[in-house]
Amino acid sequence: MIRHHDDGARCELTSPTALPLAGGFLWNRRLMIQMTCRGYATAQFMQPEPAKYAHAPNLEAKTFMQPEQAYYAHHPGRFVYVKDEDTGTLFSAPYEPVRAPLDSFSFTAAAHELAWTVEHLGLRVEMRLGLPTDDVVELWELRVTDLSGRPRRVSVVPYFPIGYMSWMNQSAEWRADLGAIVASSVTPYQKVADHFKNLHLKDKTYFLCERTPDAWEASQAAFEGEGGLHDPSALRADRLPGGDARYETPAACVQYRLSLAPYQSEVYRFAFGPALDDAEIAQVRSTYLSEADFARTRAAYADYMASGSGGLRIRTPDPALDRFVNHWLPRQVFYHGDVNRLSTDPQTRNYLQDNLGMAYIAPPVTRGALLHALGQQRDNGAMPDGILLVEGAELKYINQVPHTDHCVWLPVCLQAYLDETADFALLGEVVNGQTVAQRLDAAMAWLQQDRDARGLSYIAQGDWCDPMNMVGYRGHGVSGWLTVAAAYAMTLWAGLCADAGRTDAATRWRAAAQELNDAANTHLWDGDWYARGITDDDVQFGIAADTEGRIYLNPQSWALLSGAASDTQRQRLLAAIDAQLETPHGVAMFNPPYSRMRDDVGRVTQKHPGSAENGAVYNHAAAFYVHALYAVGDADRAFHALRRMIPGPDEADLRQRGQLPVFIPNYYRGAHAQYPRTAGRSSQLFNTGTAAWAYRSVIEGLCGLRGCTEGLQVRPQLPSGWDRLDATREFRGAQFELQVRRTGRTSVRLDGQPLPGAVVHAIEPGRSYRLEVELA
Amino acid sequence: MIRHHDDGARCELTSPTALPLAGGFLWNRRLMIQMTCRGYATAQFMQPEPAKYAHAPNLEAKTFMQPEQAYYAHHPGRFVYVKDEDTGTLFSAPYEPVRAPLDSFSFTAAAHELAWTVEHLGLRVEMRLGLPTDDVVELWELRVTDLSGRPRRVSVVPYFPIGYMSWMNQSAEWRADLGAIVASSVTPYQKVADHFKNLHLKDKTYFLCERTPDAWEASQAAFEGEGGLHDPSALRADRLPGGDARYETPAACVQYRLSLAPYQSEVYRFAFGPALDDAEIAQVRSTYLSEADFARTRAAYADYMASGSGGLRIRTPDPALDRFVNHWLPRQVFYHGDVNRLSTDPQTRNYLQDNLGMAYIAPPVTRGALLHALGQQRDNGAMPDGILLVEGAELKYINQVPHTDHCVWLPVCLQAYLDETADFALLGEVVNGQTVAQRLDAAMAWLQQDRDARGLSYIAQGDWCDPMNMVGYRGHGVSGWLTVAAAYAMTLWAGLCADAGRTDAATRWRAAAQELNDAANTHLWDGDWYARGITDDDVQFGIAADTEGRIYLNPQSWALLSGAASDTQRQRLLAAIDAQLETPHGVAMFNPPYSRMRDDVGRVTQKHPGSAENGAVYNHAAAFYVHALYAVGDADRAFHALRRMIPGPDEADLRQRGQLPVFIPNYYRGAHAQYPRTAGRSSQLFNTGTAAWAYRSVIEGLCGLRGCTEGLQVRPQLPSGWDRLDATREFRGAQFELQVRRTGRTSVRLDGQPLPGAVVHAIEPGRSYRLEVELA
Repeated sequence: MIRHHDDGARCELTSPTALPLAGGFLWNRRLMIQMTCRGYATAQFMQPEPAKYAHAPNLEAKTFMQPEQAYYAHHPGRFVYVKDEDTGTLFSAPYEPVRAPLDSFSFTAAAHELAWTVEHLGLRVEMRLGLPTDDVVELWELRVTDLSGRPRRVSVVPYFPIGYMSWMNQSAEWRADLGAIVASSVTPYQKVADHFKNLHLKDKTYFLCERTPDAWEASQAAFEGEGGLHDPSALRADRLPGGDARYETPAACVQYRLSLAPYQSEVYRFAFGPALDDAEIAQVRSTYLSEADFARTRAAYADYMASGSGGLRIRTPDPALDRFVNHWLPRQVFYHGDVNRLSTDPQTRNYLQDNLGMAYIAPPVTRGALLHALGQQRDNGAMPDGILLVEGAELKYINQVPHTDHCVWLPVCLQAYLDETADFALLGEVVNGQTVAQRLDAAMAWLQQDRDARGLSYIAQGDWCDPMNMVGYRGHGVSGWLTVAAAYAMTLWAGLCADAGRTDAATRWRAAAQELNDAANTHLWDGDWYARGITDDDVQFGIAADTEGRIYLNPQSWALLSGAASDTQRQRLLAAIDAQLETPHGVAMFNPPYSRMRDDVGRVTQKHPGSAENGAVYNHAAAFYVHALYAVGDADRAFHALRRMIPGPDEADLRQRGQLPVFIPNYYRGAHAQYPRTAGRSSQLFNTGTAAWAYRSVIEGLCGLRGCTEGLQVRPQLPSGWDRLDATREFRGAQFELQVRRTGRTSVRLDGQPLPGAVVHAIEPGRSYRLEVELA
Repeated sequence: MIRHHDDGARCELTSPTALPLAGGFLWNRRLMIQMTCRGYATAQFMQPEPAKYAHAPNLEAKTFMQPEQAYYAHHPGRFVYVKDEDTGTLFSAPYEPVRAPLDSFSFTAAAHELAWTVEHLGLRVEMRLGLPTDDVVELWELRVTDLSGRPRRVSVVPYFPIGYMSWMNQSAEWRADLGAIVASSVTPYQKVADHFKNLHLKDKTYFLCERTPDAWEASQAAFEGEGGLHDPSALRADRLPGGDARYETPAACVQYRLSLAPYQSEVYRFAFGPALDDAEIAQVRSTYLSEADFARTRAAYADYMASGSGGLRIRTPDPALDRFVNHWLPRQVFYHGDVNRLSTDPQTRNYLQDNLGMAYIAPPVTRGALLHALGQQRDNGAMPDGILLVEGAELKYINQVPHTDHCVWLPVCLQAYLDETADFALLGEVVNGQTVAQRLDAAMAWLQQDRDARGLSYIAQGDWCDPMNMVGYRGHGVSGWLTVAAAYAMTLWAGLCADAGRTDAATRWRAAAQELNDAANTHLWDGDWYARGITDDDVQFGIAADTEGRIYLNPQSWALLSGAASDTQRQRLLAAIDAQLETPHGVAMFNPPYSRMRDDVGRVTQKHPGSAENGAVYNHAAAFYVHALYAVGDADRAFHALRRMIPGPDEADLRQRGQLPVFIPNYYRGAHAQYPRTAGRSSQLFNTGTAAWAYRSVIEGLCGLRGCTEGLQVRPQLPSGWDRLDATREFRGAQFELQVRRTGRTSVRLDGQPLPGAVVHAIEPGRSYRLEVELA
């Protein structure tokens, strides 16, 4: 069902029905497109707010990305109908909308392109999608080849639905002067001020054809007719009718009538995207539409992707893991850090964690993001709910709801950045009149004061977990997780202060962290694990007495990180996690799922069991757990939890998850006990803080190659079943080759010599180092 | 293609493809459902804001009703698949989604129900939709009959898609305890305050089955499978799989496996709608789901419809007009007045005009609406942009944009009400400390002062024409239409004041009206017609020098009404309208259509030619024109413009309009010169002030039965081609029988006696009057 090529750089799916929602995604800094193997597409571009150039068939709500969206016949997509003109038989590539039973099917995701090859009726159709590095243009190459050895008469009809553009104005027509179907619209508005705001919007959608088609149609309805998308009426005739759309739903349909000699191929190139005006469309044509332009753009885009490919390559007894870590995981990290989820106001915690990931790919980006975020710190030390990235951006959606955790992520992100770079000069950079160090002090001070009389951290309308929004909205409820997370943040900051020679601050924050840990142990330890919180009405929850939402993962993970948990407590809470949160597809965020609303906890309970936050394997939380387990040296548990974030290992698992192993989704559905049919199913959403943490855990935990002030600490943590691991890592400009072997002895050698303290000091950029580690 | 039954009370369409968007609508005070002949449905209910219980397949925007929506395979609808179990052959009723070529098809719209009869495979399927008078429930009756005379094995599978309910929570399952598919959701929210607002929302959708089905399926995807909606995978098996939807798109699919004896029928009843909880669903079952309940509800609903059927019946040489006026036009008027377009904040002008229509159906409703609207008048006499109907309602969409015409509609609506009732006591009613008369004075005074130095009325961001939003947004631009409309409003109010003995006020407003008329003639008369306005930059538009938007209808119509136009001016402007605004489907609102944005006029220009306001036959404006023509006694032009509001007269016209003659749509597309393919096409939107004005013109203009202070004025205005008209009219509790004959003489007789002044005085409720009119 799936195959891997080029050592894992390409992931191929050989059936359109096995994993119908599976696919891949491409992006540049202004465009993101996610496509299913069957040809459905969801694309958005920034102008600067997210917008679409191919729309649903109705007036769709503008909202944040929706996970697990259902597809339907008229969902936007990129399709090519092929009709054998001698027999009248029809199929479509890659699969939708005709859904003909194909002789062969292949969908391939690579870092720099998505490609399909399908065979049917003695014909091969190859489709390939690439992007340029900057512009908002989809570049499509289409190749049709005879396989029958007979002369063929064939119609090839790309059909790119454009959908419902606007109630104010929509139309489309073939433009011979541009060689394109051009659909025009005006973004609807009613207030005159919005007219001026909208003037720069790219309200046209073009479908540019390198070769002039023999016929075309610009109206969805005229193309489809009574036949329906599976058998469009317009394809029953010799030629598309050549009509326009006037205040009707537009579509880009063009027809090439081919005569193919035996085994002959024909190649077509198209560009699809939004434009402000005709001049922009003409510019796209002249920049991108030739064979040479395609080749140049493809190479440039591959270079761009390579720039984000990270500095780690591993070889382990688990080739699927190797493939994922070497190719896909850094790509997902790069995506987050490079485009900030195509939002103009990323949540502060997301922004900082996404940039934490960038510390392993392009540390200057992380540095810039920390400074940018601190530039929006409030006078009282608090961080806002979202970080505005462009002039005129506004806090939207969940960023209008007060959360109390944002300060936590400053030292967490900073620690990763300084581990990678030892760039302590950053602490002295001045942002709006205060140094970074002073701003971190202020953030920690804000966390320190935002606590109740017991010393526990208030939760307001949410902490990391958005949908737990009613625990403390009346101002009293506290978060168990945030209490230990604040302790951990202060501990990290204390350590960095110590490293930076800020001794007093180090002492202050160590003490403050201890106070938080003590409060957690006094008020939240429930006997076998930590409670998730205490409500406005002083009701503990996430405790053994609860029948739903009995145990939450995050408070346990972060109590391990913060040092709140003693050895005994650690053993108890890990046993509780093993017993209550383990599922076949990962570690659940909490269990058992809620079956009904619990007013004092909030929205999470309104999601039926198996949905996003309700009992699901929320990978971001699982990733914290992995990080914590590596931190306390629990290599087996850590690897077990980490490994299950990646779809696999077998076909049954892939089918249940419904996703290719080319990214970690934000969650897999939970409620295994209640809803086994859907449990484990991927959200298909690649926006998740998980990527950064998973990559960090592979680098610093599994491979044990973690930066420190002095250099590089070497402490691989292999799962007990492994006897070897080889890795190369770029670090501070040097190259490290790591060889880990389970020999029964323990040693760490650098370039053949024993390495005292297992820390490589005085790293020289450009040099290559050889590390050999023996494990017991 | 269409047939009429019961003297026009039922309109039948005999093809599903001839007018694919055509259909009908039903409503009660909490529910409105519009259905196409092919089975697609758009339904909304009030809780109190409009909401849906059957959704699109994606997250749809919440917005005002969209005209001319395109349908697509997964659009909400009500369908029944029928499968011959002996042959495996499949079709669906009424037509979608299978679109099988049927042996016969019939869709019938009646006031109180929508019904379909289709025949295929030797089977007849009858579907019938009715509503109760109060509750939000669709009541469906389904009858399947063998026509072949052979024993049959048949599966009958109602498929009611429920669609994408919520990203927060959606699920569905068969509930044996309720005998229903029940889909559950939680309306999404992020701010905790919204949780409490949403607690009462009916977030469940039920499909109740009187008879327990043999099998069922609650997941859209499981039902459809790889087969697609035209050939669902689940129907290839013997039985639907019986699955649920868990965070998946729900659908209600139930299967009855029948053995039909030759010519045998089976009947099924279903109820479909929203509910708060299980108890409500059980209540619907016990109230509505039996044969007797259906019969009782149907009778009650027919009574409810009859209560709004108006007091006019006509018989003319034009039977299509008779059918429309006797059955459909009052129904459309009743709809508007009864439910206020299912909005909680109708635009003030719409609210007043819709209630103007109710003066001919249920005058106390008009009275209540006038008082309610005046209760929201501002201290400065201005009327707000919308009238809030329920506690907690807010001004939305276009009601947040300042318009300057709302005061105009107060005397316009009041005049119609007082003509019908002579209820001058209304003027003394006190609303918020002021009498109605004082409030009308204040409204007229607001209009009087909201003018520029030339005495022309400011337009701000719009007058009656919303999309002309940039003429005066900077505070200088004026409206030609509003100037004469204000003059007309003041003239009406002056007349009412005179009738009420408020002599000083009458003098004041007559003078004020004259001043406006004078200003219009000084600054807006362009030689052959009145300009539409003057922009912020002092540019006249809607004038002969313009190549686009050269002449607008409204300023001409209202100049006739206000008395601004002299006889010479009248002749000239009518000639200009004849030459420039006449189209085969009515009189355009303006011409030529704009082809590009004109910044100083506004949004109207961004709509491409042929869309709603751009060069279209905007029936509301055409209806003003008809009213004005009857007011000045131009019976032929009036009838010609009125008649073309109704789809017909022949098949070619019906096909071009694409609508059944069961309502007047808000517009027919224009741009006949530019886009003949789509010109004339109906918007399919039945929300329009046109209905009230058209009904008024038939009653007061064509039939010439207009109320006045003394009684009933009799002045029929037959088009020159007619030699007769018979009408009955209820008026002030009496019954009038009118017989008009073109004899070459002129006379008006009451009960056989000459009627001096053609006014019936001292009308006695309960009495019957016979009016005979001879025309030259």
